[in-house]
Amino acid sequence: MKIGIVGGTGDIGEGMARRFSSKHEVILGSRDAEKAVSTSTCIIDHLKGRGQASHCTGVSNQEAVDRAEMVVLALPFAHLEGTLAGLSGFDGKIVVSPVNPMVKKEIFTTVPPAEGSAALLVQRMLPKARVVTAFNTISHNRWKDLDRAIDVAVPVASDDAGAKAFVMGFVNSIPDLKAYDAGPLEVSCMIESLTPLLINIARYNKMHDVGIKFV
Amino acid sequence: MKIGIVGGTGDIGEGMARRFSSKHEVILGSRDAEKAVSTSTCIIDHLKGRGQASHCTGVSNQEAVDRAEMVVLALPFAHLEGTLAGLSGFDGKIVVSPVNPMVKKEIFTTVPPAEGSAALLVQRMLPKARVVTAFNTISHNRWKDLDRAIDVAVPVASDDAGAKAFVMGFVNSIPDLKAYDAGPLEVSCMIESLTPLLINIARYNKMHDVGIKFV
Repeated sequence: MKIGIVGGTGDIGEGMARRFSSKHEVILGSRDAEKAVSTSTCIIDHLKGRGQASHCTGVSNQEAVDRAEMVVLALPFAHLEGTLAGLSGFDGKIVVSPVNPMVKKEIFTTVPPAEGSAALLVQRMLPKARVVTAFNTISHNRWKDLDRAIDVAVPVASDDAGAKAFVMGFVNSIPDLKAYDAGPLEVSCMIESLTPLLINIARYNKMHDVGIKFV
Repeated sequence: MKIGIVGGTGDIGEGMARRFSSKHEVILGSRDAEKAVSTSTCIIDHLKGRGQASHCTGVSNQEAVDRAEMVVLALPFAHLEGTLAGLSGFDGKIVVSPVNPMVKKEIFTTVPPAEGSAALLVQRMLPKARVVTAFNTISHNRWKDLDRAIDVAVPVASDDAGAKAFVMGFVNSIPDLKAYDAGPLEVSCMIESLTPLLINIARYNKMHDVGIKFV
């Protein structure tokens, strides 16, 4: 599969590309295509050092959208709206949002936009995209450290049953990730508020990169 | 310890009383003290049938507050404000809120009150109580089935460090429960939104009584 990562030079995007690019073609996008090329080179070198091939190419965010079968928005919430406003070509494509609207004050707190969640904001901006909420709670360290299984649950939400089933299948194809159907896109606010909760728990309990499991 | 359960004849309250009353004195309250007495008798019989003693007494909600060292508000959100308005004597007491403001539409959704969370509503109504958020995600079936370990994580939040440490100690004294410090009371909205998420996940994935663990 051709996976486009918008914001691929950020920590989350780079970590995803490390995980995905041995089995899939990753088209890693950035506002700065040159930076995407250098991040892509680093990823290929990193996997080569482990004796693995990496199918990763650095391009602009727009080219990542255009060439992908599935687009992942690996963006901090603060850059989500501005980045999407400058891009096109999402119609009919599966667009995965792992975005969590949150701020750090004394603690991390969820601050949903007027739409109710980042995913619903994405759906409002890209009305013809097949928007799916997934991967929200996975820290960049878990993505990046290929010596360690990620080993967490991934709640997945969408109003498009086919897109949801497709993304759940993709999640389950990644070793030690398990997808759970969390319902329609409306539930995304509850998924997106998990991440600030987990970050606070990590801090107050001297833990690192806390993930979630359903039991 | 003397644990008062306001709303003790509901499913959650009765389940808690089953778990707590072998090791603690449970003062099980209800608006209807007679109903509390009969629920209490059932709990004592149930534990007796298992060869265990139960220290459980059925009383009015007000008496449960008055006699308790720690009060648990085992109330549905819809009854929280009305019940608290008719009670007094909380000043200086540890008051545990496992309450989740949620509604069932097509799916379960979190609907926080103006204060931001059920716990903050409790703190506003009982300004001198030592309010602690805990036990939000544990289903009544998990509480009630004494043949099965509950075996989930319990995020705990409070602005009162002493009360939080006390409740965390109590949580950890229950076999297979593990308390996590989630921060100040302000984070309660994120804890309270876990439960509707878990109920939806149970429904969409054909699971039962889904709980959470942090990994």
